[in-house]
Amino acid sequence: MDHVYKQVELTGSSKVSIQDAIETAVARSSETIREMRWFQVTETRGHIEDGKVAHWQVTVKIGFRVDH
Amino acid sequence: MDHVYKQVELTGSSKVSIQDAIETAVARSSETIREMRWFQVTETRGHIEDGKVAHWQVTVKIGFRVDH
Amino acid sequence: MDHVYKQVELTGSSKVSIQDAIETAVARSSETIREMRWFQVTETRGHIEDGKVAHWQVTVKIGFRVDH
Amino acid sequence: MDHVYKQVELTGSSKVSIQDAIETAVARSSETIREMRWFQVTETRGHIEDGKVAHWQVTVKIGFRVDH
Amino acid sequence: MDHVYKQVELTGSSKVSIQDAIETAVARSSETIREMRWFQVTETRGHIEDGKVAHWQVTVKIGFRVDH
Amino acid sequence: MDHVYKQVELTGSSKVSIQDAIETAVARSSETIREMRWFQVTETRGHIEDGKVAHWQVTVKIGFRVDH
Amino acid sequence: MDHVYKQVELTGSSKVSIQDAIETAVARSSETIREMRWFQVTETRGHIEDGKVAHWQVTVKIGFRVDH
Amino acid sequence: MDHVYKQVELTGSSKVSIQDAIETAVARSSETIREMRWFQVTETRGHIEDGKVAHWQVTVKIGFRVDH
Amino acid sequence: MDHVYKQVELTGSSKVSIQDAIETAVARSSETIREMRWFQVTETRGHIEDGKVAHWQVTVKIGFRVDH
Amino acid sequence: MDHVYKQVELTGSSKVSIQDAIETAVARSSETIREMRWFQVTETRGHIEDGKVAHWQVTVKIGFRVDH
Amino acid sequence: MDHVYKQVELTGSSKVSIQDAIETAVARSSETIREMRWFQVTETRGHIEDGKVAHWQVTVKIGFRVDH
Amino acid sequence: MDHVYKQVELTGSSKVSIQDAIETAVARSSETIREMRWFQVTETRGHIEDGKVAHWQVTVKIGFRVDH
Repeated sequence: MDHVYKQVELTGSSKVSIQDAIETAVARSSETIREMRWFQVTETRGHIEDGKVAHWQVTVKIGFRVDH
Repeated sequence: MDHVYKQVELTGSSKVSIQDAIETAVARSSETIREMRWFQVTETRGHIEDGKVAHWQVTVKIGFRVDH
Repeated sequence: MDHVYKQVELTGSSKVSIQDAIETAVARSSETIREMRWFQVTETRGHIEDGKVAHWQVTVKIGFRVDH
Repeated sequence: MDHVYKQVELTGSSKVSIQDAIETAVARSSETIREMRWFQVTETRGHIEDGKVAHWQVTVKIGFRVDH
Repeated sequence: MDHVYKQVELTGSSKVSIQDAIETAVARSSETIREMRWFQVTETRGHIEDGKVAHWQVTVKIGFRVDH
Repeated sequence: MDHVYKQVELTGSSKVSIQDAIETAVARSSETIREMRWFQVTETRGHIEDGKVAHWQVTVKIGFRVDH
Repeated sequence: MDHVYKQVELTGSSKVSIQDAIETAVARSSETIREMRWFQVTETRGHIEDGKVAHWQVTVKIGFRVDH
Repeated sequence: MDHVYKQVELTGSSKVSIQDAIETAVARSSETIREMRWFQVTETRGHIEDGKVAHWQVTVKIGFRVDH
Repeated sequence: MDHVYKQVELTGSSKVSIQDAIETAVARSSETIREMRWFQVTETRGHIEDGKVAHWQVTVKIGFRVDH
Repeated sequence: MDHVYKQVELTGSSKVSIQDAIETAVARSSETIREMRWFQVTETRGHIEDGKVAHWQVTVKIGFRVDH
Repeated sequence: MDHVYKQVELTGSSKVSIQDAIETAVARSSETIREMRWFQVTETRGHIEDGKVAHWQVTVKIGFRVDH
Repeated sequence: MDHVYKQVELTGSSKVSIQDAIETAVARSSETIREMRWFQVTETRGHIEDGKVAHWQVTVKIGFRVDH
């Protein structure tokens, strides 16, 4: 059988780390999207306050099955 | 608290101007999407009729919060 | 009147061909999206098994009207 | 019937605005090219004189039918 | 002897297939351009009607000799 | 004589328009940089508030002579 | 266990079709590389003779396991 | 009021981690630049010694206000 | 003396972290390649299972000397 | 007065050097195009024979005025 | 100790050659910047007069240490 | 007969010139690779010492036949 996947683009933010920002985005998606399969990082940014990194902001494309 | 944003890609068209095409896309999104925060232009095109620009077509990525 | 279009990104897979993978993605979208107008190929990949192409996987952006 | 389109790349300049630079390029093309259908902006630059924008220079790809 | 080549950008369309769209563009070019040597695909798009691919539209750069 | 130019990257913002954002960046640069010659737009973004474009944010690379 | 994959870049050519060119590259690789898993198309070109496509030339990155 | 931001490109290195390399670059900038607001990662590299990652080298664009 | 370096492209995977995936790829390469000098990240992806990141998959280009 | 420029893409080849390939392309263009103003290198390739560079092949976009 | 490098973007011009344009940019930078370590070419252009290359214009990013 | 080509990525360095760096990479490859056909420049960098270009470092993809 031939599958079809959809990709959505999300930006997760975290005060802790780049990975935590990605996991925050994936966790938020898991509330409404089932059958997530992969992600790809498309941008890594951050917010600076008082001369220090205050938030890590990572944008990911998340792919999930939509064929059933 | 850590936020999550989603990005959608829309193309607005306008007979008037590039900016009007962008504002048309943002206005249309505001009918169904709340908490829009930013946009980024990804493509500027147009339709030509009788040797003149008939429609400006601008594609934007629009980011909005989805974490609540 | 000024139109607005939305673009979604889908990946179709097929055991047969690149075109069949695209048509699979378009056919799947037609179940929930009306007024589809165009697509653009953004990536052509595939899965290899036993030294042969087992699945063609083609990612397309599909544009459709959302202004009414 | 299957159509064929050709794309040419032009740079229009204007003292007035980005859009006027595009329309200048389209108008110039209309003198020798018929059946123009679309354009796509590939670069937006400008010339600065005395600390101010003196000319807007916008490069567009213009597509037109060549199959008859 | 040192050769010089020129590249032109054409979009062929076809109701049949991606390859037919490319061959349509090459065939149309052969009516006015001699000494064509190579092509490179720069974009693969299509038009959707009634939920199905109605036209395949493939843009190619075609290179040909101009030094004699 | 051979010239040398330096490029700096600035983001201008404006409540009014894309062009005003560019001119704001150029005007601000003219206070400290002399001999500015050209600019190139590298990104066009904006801030959305209450479903409308609140600020246009345009990033430009500005080139100026540094050889004397 | 954590896997490691290597990617090699190959160009297959074919007088028949784009897909045949890809399958030619994969088949050739299967003679010396085991455990191939995926490919990604990075370029589609061709050779033109007498105004017709004489060879399809498709470049693919092929990924395979190297961790055992 | 309309703001203007400048972007500078820095490469931070660290023996510890990718994030530490970014924070090293931001910390160094804070000594001479005030009003830093955001950063964007443009490249992630590293130096290898004796078959192991010896330094993480991350390049970031850092944006800061310059309008007052 | 003039040196020559070769670059190979590897994808490391890890259940732990992005950095561990890179170090896994570098460690695997050190078994067969000597004189590795640098790496550059070209893609950061991951596999999702049960709504969580199951594997981090990072692709790197690794450069090493080949001139002796 | 507002100017319009057209850009054409040419590939010059040379047995001698990269610069000679560019100058060959410009010289060939000067036979049919007047008012050439600038060029931009878009690709540098070459042909290898018997383990040595036999031809340098450089592709340039050449801009020239078309408004009178 | 962990180092920090800054990158600046310069365009050197030369009537002689591509390399001379790069060396002109580096030489100019050495008057005000110490501890320069590397450069990367980002664009190669030129000015054409009377159908010949009049100036070679090469843009480079130059990296230098800023951590002491 | 249908051919298959493989591409490898090498960086040549030279104290003399950009072309010499390319020829150094090609010459080194000719010791182990037969049937080399073409190369493409993917990056031009250099090392700076005492305010002058000390080494030219040019990365090329080299294509060669592997089908027999």
